[in-house]
Amino acid sequence: MQRAVDLLALYDAEHPSRSVRELVTATGLPKSTVVRLVHTLEQCGLLWSRGDGRTVPGPGLLRWAELARTTWQLPEEALARLRALSEAGGGESVGLYVRQGDARVCVARHEGTRSLRHVVHVGAEMPLWAGAAGHVLLSRSDRAAVTAVAAQGPDPEGAALLWERVQRAAERGWSVSHGEREAGISGAAAPVFDAEGRLTAAVALGGPTVRFTDEAVAGFVPALLDTARALTALGSIGGTGR
Amino acid sequence: MQRAVDLLALYDAEHPSRSVRELVTATGLPKSTVVRLVHTLEQCGLLWSRGDGRTVPGPGLLRWAELARTTWQLPEEALARLRALSEAGGGESVGLYVRQGDARVCVARHEGTRSLRHVVHVGAEMPLWAGAAGHVLLSRSDRAAVTAVAAQGPDPEGAALLWERVQRAAERGWSVSHGEREAGISGAAAPVFDAEGRLTAAVALGGPTVRFTDEAVAGFVPALLDTARALTALGSIGGTGR
Repeated sequence: MQRAVDLLALYDAEHPSRSVRELVTATGLPKSTVVRLVHTLEQCGLLWSRGDGRTVPGPGLLRWAELARTTWQLPEEALARLRALSEAGGGESVGLYVRQGDARVCVARHEGTRSLRHVVHVGAEMPLWAGAAGHVLLSRSDRAAVTAVAAQGPDPEGAALLWERVQRAAERGWSVSHGEREAGISGAAAPVFDAEGRLTAAVALGGPTVRFTDEAVAGFVPALLDTARALTALGSIGGTGR
Repeated sequence: MQRAVDLLALYDAEHPSRSVRELVTATGLPKSTVVRLVHTLEQCGLLWSRGDGRTVPGPGLLRWAELARTTWQLPEEALARLRALSEAGGGESVGLYVRQGDARVCVARHEGTRSLRHVVHVGAEMPLWAGAAGHVLLSRSDRAAVTAVAAQGPDPEGAALLWERVQRAAERGWSVSHGEREAGISGAAAPVFDAEGRLTAAVALGGPTVRFTDEAVAGFVPALLDTARALTALGSIGGTGR
């Protein structure tokens, strides 16, 4: 299953169709394995063989696309809140992230208006061990869980540092990060809860580190916290209430 | 893989979230199997556990939704053709179908305007052994292949009849059906080809049998064939050319 999903992940805007040969090169798997995986994915409707011998994401995904849209589409009022936060943040981009296993996934966003801006697509997966949204999403986890997540990162010494950042996020109710995931990118994030007070998501502002000075961050944290509270009040993340 | 996909298929507009207990009831699988499948799907991002103990289609599907959209979105000109066919057909619904394994999947549609209308959603799977679009999609297959498809149907005697209908579709370049899949629904379909002349899709008008008299069908077949030719000329089904 995971291998099949990883194979599908090789299709994107730059590679809308793939030949078996390309898939073999991209995965490093034996050709026989790739052929078998492609066949399985075709049977499930997740890949489709075009007449020209190339495969494309299958029409079975169309139903899943509808499912994803129904589940994750935020109400207009919540999207308006993301937009307002982007404006309050001086035109930086805003993203809403949920935890998915050991990753965080962007489930909604409002792209900033600056010419140098942080661009994240809905559906994009990012590591949980890096970035302000990661700290926030881990802020209800215990040390063992945080250490396990840190072990996914590149730095064997990273666990103590991540735990410190996560604790800080839990204490003050927001977090800021500079270049943890990618040099030159900063973020500030705050937690969103469901109606029963469980941590559900992190709302984050993201942009170039050069614009995330301590002064600038102090300036937009109130708007960030306001937005997080408004999203908590609106609910509906992951189709809550349905 | 197929079982995991079947499990995901249990989530729809009426069932946007599911508990393990509901999944056990709906699948008839042992609870341990369901728990394992849910866990696998969560790991892949295809299911997401909400804080309330219910699972929903996962944020990983958001990326796949984007892939499906990119691959299957028809150019505006092609959609305008579907709309025009619906109008020429007296307001009946129009669907575009591709073959996926032993099924046909609706990849685009224009919903009719009549108060009694044929409603098919993009992504919906239908059997290949029934309906005018099925005949057309099988019209380049040999008898053995058609017999294998007929074996999926409920009628053990259906193979000869299906072969006859498929041959007829191949000869005259279109097909009509009445109540083959569902009593009271009729359809008329014509083939769409890719740039190399390979059969790619079937475009179909669908509506209540009471409105699909021989006279009415004779009246809209020219528009149906025109539309099929226009879609062939436009290409782009399944991202062809990309």
